[in-house]
Amino acid sequence: MHSVGICGSDVHYWQHGQIGDFVLKKPMVLGHEAAGRVVKVGSAVSHLKPGDRVAIEPGVPRDMDEFFKRGQYNLSPTIFFCATPPDHGNLCRYYTHNANFCYKLPDNVTFEEGALIEPLSVGIHACRRAGVTLGSTVLICGAGPIGLVSLIVAKAMGASKVIITDLFAERLGVAKELGADFQLTVKKDDGAQQLAKKVEEILGAQPQITIECTGVESCIQTALYATCSGGVVMLVGLGAAMTTVPLVNAAVREVDIRGVFRYCNTWPMAIAMLSSGKVNVKPLVTHRFPLEQAVQAFETTHQGLGIKVMLKCDKNDQNP
Amino acid sequence: MHSVGICGSDVHYWQHGQIGDFVLKKPMVLGHEAAGRVVKVGSAVSHLKPGDRVAIEPGVPRDMDEFFKRGQYNLSPTIFFCATPPDHGNLCRYYTHNANFCYKLPDNVTFEEGALIEPLSVGIHACRRAGVTLGSTVLICGAGPIGLVSLIVAKAMGASKVIITDLFAERLGVAKELGADFQLTVKKDDGAQQLAKKVEEILGAQPQITIECTGVESCIQTALYATCSGGVVMLVGLGAAMTTVPLVNAAVREVDIRGVFRYCNTWPMAIAMLSSGKVNVKPLVTHRFPLEQAVQAFETTHQGLGIKVMLKCDKNDQNP
Amino acid sequence: MHSVGICGSDVHYWQHGQIGDFVLKKPMVLGHEAAGRVVKVGSAVSHLKPGDRVAIEPGVPRDMDEFFKRGQYNLSPTIFFCATPPDHGNLCRYYTHNANFCYKLPDNVTFEEGALIEPLSVGIHACRRAGVTLGSTVLICGAGPIGLVSLIVAKAMGASKVIITDLFAERLGVAKELGADFQLTVKKDDGAQQLAKKVEEILGAQPQITIECTGVESCIQTALYATCSGGVVMLVGLGAAMTTVPLVNAAVREVDIRGVFRYCNTWPMAIAMLSSGKVNVKPLVTHRFPLEQAVQAFETTHQGLGIKVMLKCDKNDQNP
Amino acid sequence: MHSVGICGSDVHYWQHGQIGDFVLKKPMVLGHEAAGRVVKVGSAVSHLKPGDRVAIEPGVPRDMDEFFKRGQYNLSPTIFFCATPPDHGNLCRYYTHNANFCYKLPDNVTFEEGALIEPLSVGIHACRRAGVTLGSTVLICGAGPIGLVSLIVAKAMGASKVIITDLFAERLGVAKELGADFQLTVKKDDGAQQLAKKVEEILGAQPQITIECTGVESCIQTALYATCSGGVVMLVGLGAAMTTVPLVNAAVREVDIRGVFRYCNTWPMAIAMLSSGKVNVKPLVTHRFPLEQAVQAFETTHQGLGIKVMLKCDKNDQNP
Repeated sequence: MHSVGICGSDVHYWQHGQIGDFVLKKPMVLGHEAAGRVVKVGSAVSHLKPGDRVAIEPGVPRDMDEFFKRGQYNLSPTIFFCATPPDHGNLCRYYTHNANFCYKLPDNVTFEEGALIEPLSVGIHACRRAGVTLGSTVLICGAGPIGLVSLIVAKAMGASKVIITDLFAERLGVAKELGADFQLTVKKDDGAQQLAKKVEEILGAQPQITIECTGVESCIQTALYATCSGGVVMLVGLGAAMTTVPLVNAAVREVDIRGVFRYCNTWPMAIAMLSSGKVNVKPLVTHRFPLEQAVQAFETTHQGLGIKVMLKCDKNDQNP
Repeated sequence: MHSVGICGSDVHYWQHGQIGDFVLKKPMVLGHEAAGRVVKVGSAVSHLKPGDRVAIEPGVPRDMDEFFKRGQYNLSPTIFFCATPPDHGNLCRYYTHNANFCYKLPDNVTFEEGALIEPLSVGIHACRRAGVTLGSTVLICGAGPIGLVSLIVAKAMGASKVIITDLFAERLGVAKELGADFQLTVKKDDGAQQLAKKVEEILGAQPQITIECTGVESCIQTALYATCSGGVVMLVGLGAAMTTVPLVNAAVREVDIRGVFRYCNTWPMAIAMLSSGKVNVKPLVTHRFPLEQAVQAFETTHQGLGIKVMLKCDKNDQNP
Repeated sequence: MHSVGICGSDVHYWQHGQIGDFVLKKPMVLGHEAAGRVVKVGSAVSHLKPGDRVAIEPGVPRDMDEFFKRGQYNLSPTIFFCATPPDHGNLCRYYTHNANFCYKLPDNVTFEEGALIEPLSVGIHACRRAGVTLGSTVLICGAGPIGLVSLIVAKAMGASKVIITDLFAERLGVAKELGADFQLTVKKDDGAQQLAKKVEEILGAQPQITIECTGVESCIQTALYATCSGGVVMLVGLGAAMTTVPLVNAAVREVDIRGVFRYCNTWPMAIAMLSSGKVNVKPLVTHRFPLEQAVQAFETTHQGLGIKVMLKCDKNDQNP
Repeated sequence: MHSVGICGSDVHYWQHGQIGDFVLKKPMVLGHEAAGRVVKVGSAVSHLKPGDRVAIEPGVPRDMDEFFKRGQYNLSPTIFFCATPPDHGNLCRYYTHNANFCYKLPDNVTFEEGALIEPLSVGIHACRRAGVTLGSTVLICGAGPIGLVSLIVAKAMGASKVIITDLFAERLGVAKELGADFQLTVKKDDGAQQLAKKVEEILGAQPQITIECTGVESCIQTALYATCSGGVVMLVGLGAAMTTVPLVNAAVREVDIRGVFRYCNTWPMAIAMLSSGKVNVKPLVTHRFPLEQAVQAFETTHQGLGIKVMLKCDKNDQNP
């Protein structure tokens, strides 16, 4: 392994030992945003050879079930997924993974870019399911890592205007650098309908698509009120199990509400985009630690510092 | 005009003078489920002539706005719609309507079938947006008129198994006659997750599509829990403005939540289905009254008797 | 194995030893329309057990490649496929197959219906890719087995009017029994534009969808001329490598031209339809032979007698 | 009127008096790529006022027919279209047009950019119907105006690699400046399969989408051979009525063949893209002439000089 990013879920398992129904029952290796170099391949593998640099898709379907056959393998209930109990992750020196889910990196894509394909994939899956296309107007709620990758992808898919909201002005500053057309600082007690109105005023019209990355109830309400008739609200952030929302308002305006569960079929297009220079994810990496300082790295993410923390697993190569 | 059905919304305007933001400010003619015979056409009309029997689509866009241009004219904010204030309906002897929204009935389709295309259209629009297709398994919540037309349409689109729920066994009996594969009588205090479980047991698997026709919060909850991963919940029934629902459960299983606002582009296919005998809506008409007895007709619907009440507006022809 | 149908391709390999680029280099077991009873399962199989009656999907992807991951495993270049050289078919007493591509038959679906899911799947894949839905008007060129299954599926998906053409009146007679609304006997030298005109006259409008099952150049021309603007022509029949067609006529009317390669994701919905009684394929079986009389069975298909010939592979059970 | 571009079809009507079935029977004003300033509006118009700068969509449906209702108004057989006989175009000083098809230009979009929305729309409609999205690999045959706008749009929609072909190296030079990743100079007698192979070698894989902008038979053949299984060939260029093509090769690889007829629903997204700076069409204008020198302008286009010739219709403002 060469570079492994730390995700909020890694920190959560570290601190709480569980996320929802996924409960740790014994020690588990963390890490699922990863890239490395092939050391050895099985005899049936023909698309990779030792020495190849690869990005690792952490989810590998175990069964050829109806979900996999239909191209929605992320929904397969028996899927293997790095660092989701009981499956081990890949934050380590050496790691074995299904070769079909290891993707060769072109020379002009770094290991860290390869590792960042994982969070980028969340943005790709969300924007693709949302139908972002040429000229789309998009509201993104939340400028954390997922909000930022959604922003990058939305612009790369042709969105003409993206407005992004957050509680913190610094995060919105990063969003501006990454291409956001408008930033809106919000406060915890802002009214959902008032915020929706403000978004409409700034854009000159209601956004066609809203990508909700906070999971906060009032933000989901804002998303439903703000989106134009016939539009789409993507639920990417996860919050409380039960949510009180203006469902009728959305329904009678045919605003579709869609969720995402991880992603599928994103690595090849992500590599294509990185290699062609169409998207730039390098600014997302704000901290790097050698694997030996993993605890310090996890503390950094835990404290909410920077955007993405990278762990460098190869003693001989700590480059990006 | 020949035959005009009474809809729940007609009764609501009659009793309460408003539905949501639509408030009656002066007397309004009711009625929007209608068929009649052409008396006169404008000089630019070539597809109709006096004597033709027609079904009337009650919504007519006033502006060539972006919604209309994209084929979603039902979402056009300035649309004319029969019996939605301030626009008059067509429950009368003579009525003038845009010829482009009057559809000629074949000889083997009756006036009443023509009038029933309006509620049938709600079912078509819901099933079409839900993606019902060959072999679909469908849960329908509520066996009122809209639940029943959704059932008829789902079966005509190729659904293999349809289960329908209601509080009242009699209504489920009608559903059975119209082709429901399974009926499930529910009680007001049934738990949403328990009901979802029961539906899964009866079908042998979670339904791929749920069409929610009640608007009741606990039913919407059942719909979200019950639908299989990657499936669709259609919100057709309308209830309280704010609803508390297990949004995260649906989102992480990529269960899409979609609403409907009336319908668009349904009359031609409805006529094709009626004419070919693929769907049979005749059993829906349980009561008929001459126009002179309109108050009695409205009382019948108000009391929840039967399924569909028809008003016969042509003194010389009170046939179906 | 219990029942195996004979397909035109089986006869072609028998007579010519090749189809296109697929050349027989050594003896090969024929047969790919099959159903049987499970004798033994591997240790990892949980959805099947000895004694289960199953239908066999003959194509099994060997690699988790990009096609398989996207849900188009039929396009995977390394797919295993029964009776396509060098892969053996299943016209034998005992046969081993990937359990993920063996589908349990409900009690009310016979082995022969299970075997017929294979040709039915061609119809399902064609109609699904064509977008057949409620009220569709459909032209089917050719009333052979594939034309007939396309007809059955189109009607089950809600098509309101299906017109079918063939050179032979007897075949059109079968089509009529299976639900065709109109039959049109054609002659080898009929003009393509004249036939297109005749189809329009019979239907009262151009068909929205044409399913071309002959592969004959003049029929493909008819298909392109006949289909209405914005419609779809499905190329299911295969003919000469180079074809002269009115491509501009189709292109400027936005008539999409789509092909099919076998099928994917059809067995579960086919079983659902057969079990619910929505489709009836039993009339397709016109001849039955015990496995010992295989040559006679192949001769029967070779001579073009009847529709579908079934070989009965189980000595103890020659029932349907 | 302010700026009107000259299209190949304008020159063709000028030289030949007809295109296909559209025959000039009396003098006709040419021009359909236009932008101008509002002088006067009808009493029912609320979205425009005198002084507004607008781009003009030349096609205006006359009937609310089934095509218009479904959002495909470009296919409406009775549509009005500028400079298609017998409808006059807008290459003049003053011109009256349906206000619903006049789109207000933001301050940062010039008149000439507004006029170029018309050819840009062909690219938008083609790329949208082709399904170009993030990471798409695209082959464009022909680097004339339509090939170039398709290139611009494909890149804006997220295409990662675009390869473009032409007979003339100079045209490919322009393509390179506009963002083409690879250019391939072809010769008239190049073999279709050889060219397809060369494209695959350059891209490292077969393109997912081919946009054919020449109408030449051998190029259409190349397009069909070159596109990867499951991909799309868009037919944008128009050639001979009958074309000999490897239809079976495309069909069995499920390569869809789709045409375009003009465009619909493109102006709003085009304006959004121009205003946001996501696409740059300014380099397309290579020549400008005042309206008085119209003949010289038409000669320039006729001789194939430059890319786009603009006629300046406003005596007081000849700026872009």
